[in-house]
Amino acid sequence: MSTTPRIVDLRRGVLEKNDQIAAALRDRFCAAGVQVANWVSSPGTGKTALLERLLVHAQEQRVRAAVLVGDCATDNDARRLAATGAPVRQIETASMCHLEADMVTSHVDALVADGTDLDDLDLLVLENVGNLVCPTSYDLGEGMRVALLSVTEGEDKPLKYPALFASADVVVLTKVDIADAVDFDRAAAESAIAAVAPGRPVVATSARTGEGVGALLTLLLMPPPAEY
Amino acid sequence: MSTTPRIVDLRRGVLEKNDQIAAALRDRFCAAGVQVANWVSSPGTGKTALLERLLVHAQEQRVRAAVLVGDCATDNDARRLAATGAPVRQIETASMCHLEADMVTSHVDALVADGTDLDDLDLLVLENVGNLVCPTSYDLGEGMRVALLSVTEGEDKPLKYPALFASADVVVLTKVDIADAVDFDRAAAESAIAAVAPGRPVVATSARTGEGVGALLTLLLMPPPAEY
Repeated sequence: MSTTPRIVDLRRGVLEKNDQIAAALRDRFCAAGVQVANWVSSPGTGKTALLERLLVHAQEQRVRAAVLVGDCATDNDARRLAATGAPVRQIETASMCHLEADMVTSHVDALVADGTDLDDLDLLVLENVGNLVCPTSYDLGEGMRVALLSVTEGEDKPLKYPALFASADVVVLTKVDIADAVDFDRAAAESAIAAVAPGRPVVATSARTGEGVGALLTLLLMPPPAEY
Repeated sequence: MSTTPRIVDLRRGVLEKNDQIAAALRDRFCAAGVQVANWVSSPGTGKTALLERLLVHAQEQRVRAAVLVGDCATDNDARRLAATGAPVRQIETASMCHLEADMVTSHVDALVADGTDLDDLDLLVLENVGNLVCPTSYDLGEGMRVALLSVTEGEDKPLKYPALFASADVVVLTKVDIADAVDFDRAAAESAIAAVAPGRPVVATSARTGEGVGALLTLLLMPPPAEY
């Protein structure tokens, strides 16, 4: 590690301030009775495609869901998700490689100003910037952290990025419809997940076929266990 | 952006120091006559699988290649690559989400101490930590930056992570053997690349079939143009 002690001290200060803002967010979400999930994965794991499918399913189940979606640039994902009719806001982070709690606060405020009542929501998904490292350290006030892994990424990703997977409450496998085409070894992936995140539920999903979308929605609406 | 000005100033200092170390590395690589490529992509794009294939092809072509491979944890990738017989070292970055020039310096020193003469190498590949944001700012003394994008990640990734693609000399598409299975729209991907990185060569590859591996090796051994 080449980072100087002074930088480390300052980073610690940034994280402590983030944690305070996140704690206030968590109180606010709890008071409104909305379940909040922070979705973290590599770029290209298919978070947005899965969310599109999840939002449609949520509407069919009369579950009221909203999304804040982070990207370095473009509002492509917000436009895709808003087509489902759910309240959606894009958080453009410019060069920042993760969401922070104050960004979530200001975009939740904007969602409310646009006419969404937090008390009327069942579920708020925070789709983080695609990155398996940096988002790990930033609490966004979520009740549940979801780590996603596509079948195309390699079964040993949880071992290579253990901090994120260890911090997750739920692990979601995506794109399982093409598992055979990419020789995905599910047992190896589940073994890697269990090694760094023992006891976490693993949900296999496909945004294309809809597999696992109902199970995932059910999980997202349940509070996670206090510990593993 | 919630980062404080003080942090920004300190980050600038870290980057300036990195640039100085990188400049010294570049002089050293140039004096040894070794082409150095910095490979950057999401986790799971298939850098290591493509490198395995490239190293075998390089040996067949009597091109002498070595690799430094970065990961947050595990030496899985170094073990995979070392099986090809090429000189390989793993850089474990712990919680750090990118390689920095001083890590490259110390591992190049270790490669030399292990008996690899830089003067005898034609090619050194620096496989960065899987991340589309943070590695962008860190010069590693490379002559060529390679941004890789798999057909499974979504054609608009270059638009969402423009800084990395704009900083690349070459863009490599990976896993093209499964392009049809994932409905990959190559024209859309090339249009997104051209929008943020006009004029860059795009090489379509498959680690499975070997498609494009020869073309990529040829490109890696050529110095990139001075500007685009």
